[in-house]
This record gives sequence, structure tokens and C-alpha cells, in this order.
Amino acid sequence: MSATPAALEVLSTQDCWELIGPGGVGRVAFAGLRGLTVLPVNYRVHDGVVVFRTRRGGEMEEDLRTGIKDVDRGIAFEIDRIDNVTESGWSVLLRGPAHLVTGDEPVPAGEDVRPWAGGTRDLHIQITPHEITGRRVFPVQGHG
Amino acid sequence: MSATPAALEVLSTQDCWELIGPGGVGRVAFAGLRGLTVLPVNYRVHDGVVVFRTRRGGEMEEDLRTGIKDVDRGIAFEIDRIDNVTESGWSVLLRGPAHLVTGDEPVPAGEDVRPWAGGTRDLHIQITPHEITGRRVFPVQGHG
Repeated sequence: MSATPAALEVLSTQDCWELIGPGGVGRVAFAGLRGLTVLPVNYRVHDGVVVFRTRRGGEMEEDLRTGIKDVDRGIAFEIDRIDNVTESGWSVLLRGPAHLVTGDEPVPAGEDVRPWAGGTRDLHIQITPHEITGRRVFPVQGHG
Repeated sequence: MSATPAALEVLSTQDCWELIGPGGVGRVAFAGLRGLTVLPVNYRVHDGVVVFRTRRGGEMEEDLRTGIKDVDRGIAFEIDRIDNVTESGWSVLLRGPAHLVTGDEPVPAGEDVRPWAGGTRDLHIQITPHEITGRRVFPVQGHG
């Protein structure tokens, strides 16, 4: 095969935040007890914080809860939008500690975060990224 | 808010393979030098092996190459299809070692793997999962 010529553009931090701002489906990745885990979740963005919900007592809480409320070890959150027809799109990757929001704390934008997976999902997790990177990919003009 | 009632169904191994069989866009996750990394890539499935391509000399090769050709440490590959309107969909997660296909090896289904990100992408990576899990989520009837 011959690879489709394409261009890769590194996104600015501001571009990244604007692209992920509307919320929707993202993928959370973490080193779980059974290995590296990646799960789709619905998320919201609020004041530089990404919030999503998952099931209390589920795999994620089991993995993230290590006796402390804040998890410093790596968690990543990826959002992308890819048009399969035009083969263009973007992806954004956030890295940062996860924080389990407990009952005595307000949930940033949490009222609008709808759980994607079924069941009772009442665990809010927020990520305040210390790093956000992104890239946009689009076909090179004239090579179509 | 009240969570949307939904049901979660654990998928069989066979279901997982059938769902990811057509190929398309998936997300590879690995513990990189700069932290946990998740990137969208185009993939193909061939005889129980997932193959995707990435850029030679890029972040992924840098991370996966540690002087050995096969990487035993955790790599994960996630594929999902989610309908934002019906809030139904599925996700599949594979775990297993990554193998960098070198020039003297045939690339399983590699001729059809189109790189998603731009630039020269001539590094084939294949994952032979030792674990494949998946789940399907759909709204509960009558609660709409």
C-alpha cells in the first residue's frame, strides 16, 4: 500500500481546551490491578478540570483507591474526533492525578456528567491535568 | 441529576473478536517515557492479532523500543463504538505484549493498515492479546 499523505499539526494548549470543551465521550486510561485499562466514559470540562462518573465499587474505584483520596500515579484521559471519510481529525491527551470527589465536596460540572456505562454510577472522578497535548491530522491537499 | 437507567452486558470473547474484526480506529495505550500515553491509530485484525502502524522514530517507537524487539510490559488496545443519540454502544479492551515487525518478517494484514496520523509511518506493531474483554451498554427499555 502507499500511505495516504497527511499532515500532522501540534495543537496549542488553548486549542486543546477549546476542542475538548463541549464534553462528550472520552477514554480514561490507568494502570489497574489487572493491567493497563482503557474505558470510555462521558466527561465534562469545568475550569480546567475534567470530570467523569463511574460506578461505585467498580473496577476503576478498586484500582484508584489505594487508601488515599488522591491518586498521584499516572492517569491519562484521551479525547478524539475522527472523520473516517475525510481521514481528518484531532486527538487530545491529558495527564494528571485523579481525585475522587467525596460527598462533602461540590462536584465541578458534575450535575451534567452522564454516566456512559450502565448501572448505578455515583462515583465522580476529576482530573486536573498537569499536561495537555494534542494534534490535528488532515490529508495533504493535492495528493488525494 | 438522575442517571439514565442503562444495562451493561459483558461480552464473550467471540463477541469481542467479531465486533473488532472489521478494523478501523482504535486507541493504543502504553506506559511511555513521559507518562501514560493513549493515541488513536488505524488497526486491522488478522488471525487473532491486532496490527497497526505508527511513525518510525516517533514517540511510540521510542517508548516501546528498549533494546529488545518484543515488549512484555503492558500495552492495551481499546476499540469502541458509541452512538451518542441512543447512548448505546460497546467497548473492547485487549491486553498483551507488543511486537515490532521488522523488515524480514511478513506483516499480518499489514498491507491494509492505513496510518491515521500524518507523516511517514512505516513502523508496524502487532499485539497478540493474552486477554480480551468487552462490554455492551444500552438504555433500559421503558425508562426513556
